[in-house]
Amino acid sequence: MNRSIILHILGWIMSFEAAFMVLPIIVAMVYGEKSGYAFLITIGICLLIGLPLIFRKPKNRVFYAKEGFVSVALGWIILSFMGSLPFYISGQIPNFFDALFETISGFSTTGSSILSDVEALDYCMLFWRSFTHWIGGMGVLVFILAILPLARGESMHIMRAESPGPSVEKLVPRMRTSASLLYGIYIGMTVLQILLLIVGRMPIFDALTLTFGSAGTGGFAIKNTNMMSYSPYLQGVITVFMFLFGVNFNFYYFILLRKVKDAIKMEEVRWYFVIVVIAVCLISLNTGGFGGFLGAIHHSAFQVSSIITTTGYATLDFNYWPSFSKTILVLLMFIGACAGSTGGGIKVSRIIVLFKTIGKEMSYLVHRRSVKVLKLNGKKLEKENIHSINVFFVTYMVLFAASFLLISLDNFDITTTFTATLATLGNIGPGLGVVGPMGNFGEFSILSKLVMMFNMLAGRLEIFPILLLFSPSTWKR
Amino acid sequence: MNRSIILHILGWIMSFEAAFMVLPIIVAMVYGEKSGYAFLITIGICLLIGLPLIFRKPKNRVFYAKEGFVSVALGWIILSFMGSLPFYISGQIPNFFDALFETISGFSTTGSSILSDVEALDYCMLFWRSFTHWIGGMGVLVFILAILPLARGESMHIMRAESPGPSVEKLVPRMRTSASLLYGIYIGMTVLQILLLIVGRMPIFDALTLTFGSAGTGGFAIKNTNMMSYSPYLQGVITVFMFLFGVNFNFYYFILLRKVKDAIKMEEVRWYFVIVVIAVCLISLNTGGFGGFLGAIHHSAFQVSSIITTTGYATLDFNYWPSFSKTILVLLMFIGACAGSTGGGIKVSRIIVLFKTIGKEMSYLVHRRSVKVLKLNGKKLEKENIHSINVFFVTYMVLFAASFLLISLDNFDITTTFTATLATLGNIGPGLGVVGPMGNFGEFSILSKLVMMFNMLAGRLEIFPILLLFSPSTWKR
Repeated sequence: MNRSIILHILGWIMSFEAAFMVLPIIVAMVYGEKSGYAFLITIGICLLIGLPLIFRKPKNRVFYAKEGFVSVALGWIILSFMGSLPFYISGQIPNFFDALFETISGFSTTGSSILSDVEALDYCMLFWRSFTHWIGGMGVLVFILAILPLARGESMHIMRAESPGPSVEKLVPRMRTSASLLYGIYIGMTVLQILLLIVGRMPIFDALTLTFGSAGTGGFAIKNTNMMSYSPYLQGVITVFMFLFGVNFNFYYFILLRKVKDAIKMEEVRWYFVIVVIAVCLISLNTGGFGGFLGAIHHSAFQVSSIITTTGYATLDFNYWPSFSKTILVLLMFIGACAGSTGGGIKVSRIIVLFKTIGKEMSYLVHRRSVKVLKLNGKKLEKENIHSINVFFVTYMVLFAASFLLISLDNFDITTTFTATLATLGNIGPGLGVVGPMGNFGEFSILSKLVMMFNMLAGRLEIFPILLLFSPSTWKR
Repeated sequence: MNRSIILHILGWIMSFEAAFMVLPIIVAMVYGEKSGYAFLITIGICLLIGLPLIFRKPKNRVFYAKEGFVSVALGWIILSFMGSLPFYISGQIPNFFDALFETISGFSTTGSSILSDVEALDYCMLFWRSFTHWIGGMGVLVFILAILPLARGESMHIMRAESPGPSVEKLVPRMRTSASLLYGIYIGMTVLQILLLIVGRMPIFDALTLTFGSAGTGGFAIKNTNMMSYSPYLQGVITVFMFLFGVNFNFYYFILLRKVKDAIKMEEVRWYFVIVVIAVCLISLNTGGFGGFLGAIHHSAFQVSSIITTTGYATLDFNYWPSFSKTILVLLMFIGACAGSTGGGIKVSRIIVLFKTIGKEMSYLVHRRSVKVLKLNGKKLEKENIHSINVFFVTYMVLFAASFLLISLDNFDITTTFTATLATLGNIGPGLGVVGPMGNFGEFSILSKLVMMFNMLAGRLEIFPILLLFSPSTWKR
């Protein structure tokens, strides 16, 4: 384990976080809020620890997969810890664990909140809270790498560890150019959404924060009524952009490079689209009674788009939906968005591969010598990749079961416990029952909150970087 | 597809079922019940169709894996269909779908019932209902094979398709001798349990039927109060035997052959034991308030033993337990008993292998060239086996999710829907909520009942034989 280079990277992370915190200070100045000083203090702490780490050059540049995982896992922990300080120092979230929960929920783009009254927070705090979604969505470390002069091996291992989804190999060779292009898309779409919301007469502050929440597929609301109070136009814009941010960004990348054929070939995007359409139709039919059929389509499109992308905004309390519609939402929570998007969950591409392996197993059982080749996007899938995807699914379920058990100690009803586990591990935000879209996570015990914090980070980083922190072999020299 | 040999085997199955039905006729005579005539009619139907099929010799004896799966799947469907006729013909279960549900639940050793008043059934019906558990538990087809003069290939493929658990290869070469030994153990333990119950002053009828239910890990109760009304001694005997029938029978096999070392080496049995002990301790601590600590141990041991072996008897309504204890039961429902036992679920050995693959993946991620060898019971696991176990888990979950969605159309609460799906797919019997140990499955729609019947058969036959029935390539000539 090359500790010095990891510390060096952590130094950069803290310094970047200090830079990010300039924005909420500006917000505090605009609204004349005193609590802005908490960001100043935190910036001081970040730089005090971060800068010396940057300037102490690492002894050697040995950097393998192990170092990649550890940097990413520790990086996100440090990021969340520092990010929670303004809430705690200002006393806006007086309990430290709650402040940390809220910040991890922010960076991991989960959107589960412990606050029962969001509107009580100052504007600068609400801004920072939503901004963490936007930072978390773009993958801080990869972002930093795109700027920093690091070696190719370091970039690759960090990108592999941080990127959502099963395969990043394709874009890695030209990492820096492709990363800047991807960030260009991310920023461009963010700006476009902000403009469209402002055109629809949304206040600028709301437009900024809610766009951060949808771009990062986070879902922190800034009103106690969540998204209920906005006009159908604004809700519609958000529906569309949540959906768009759940698409694999390689799709946009191909389109920008005018490789429309490659874009259309992407099975994941096609299936993502099909799943969304089917889910919207079924829920509309099932909930037709709620305010007419058009209203049903409007609201089911919003909720489906919000849940499959693991954003978590809500225009109504789907706790009151019939069981069938709720079950669809629960299944969408497991599926999640596309790989290579800002969304969480298991990811559509993995689900596709899992279905294909079932088909393969069936023909293997019948004809022992069958050597059916599995393909994705027209390309052969390697045995190792297929196996890894299967193991990922198993690990996801095991982690889910263990967390479900621990959280059940709080003695909430099974539905609440189950969906609270799922909402945090899948980075969704709301669940059902007590943690429904109009509820919050404040009532859980410290133990449950710790489990959920672990899950949110594990879910965002696709489990293994976080799990590996607990493996003794990771720390062997 | 060699249809003639499959029809030949189906003929044998129907004839054997006719023979099994002699027993309930004796019961009807003892209790002077008119409904016994329904069994006579059914025997007539079975022989009328079955005997001609037996005497028409198959054209050729080509018999591959495909034929094995189809014989097993169709065999169980025919068995259930014929087995449901007495209930329907006698009018004791007037709805045909309900009669079929009850019979599939019996043969698949599930124990989910559509009856709200079990005690209204005649004795001969109650006897047959519980006897289907005992038949289902021993694996009818393998039993028939042990007697019939079939070729080695046929035996192997049928055994592979019908046996619960991931690997049967070890015992196959000496199939006939080992099968008779295993049946010897099964019958011996059944007799022992009946005697111990009678010693405890249980009425003979109850001792017979309840032993059939625990030997087959089925769990049909014969009283509306389930097992509440029996003495602690009787409940204790049943606790122990449920546990024993959930052990991999190879364990007893080794012990009979005085290979105690091999028996103790069986990781699955050790982990099964550990899981049971931990679950009993945790639930006892969690439910200590229910009638003192000793009472808590007594009842939690009963319920844990009942649920992990997927039997489904209950000495209390665990719907009233705290969430933590209920969650433990739900997780035990997924785990299930040992492979090579009469129990259902995913099976302990598969869970062990899944955990080991997670460990392997973690070291693979850190050291790309690591070639850690996975072992079970000290023997190397082949890559294909590991992969198959992973795919089995995925298939199980996909089937679970699809059924969960379909059953949710009935608009029961999520907990009821979830556990009703699990209770049928895992061959457990009761779930939580409406389908708790004191509830029943009568209220579900025809669609849900069809889905559950599919699940019960799929769960008992480890999914693929039933799934393959729906694959067009299975039916190609």
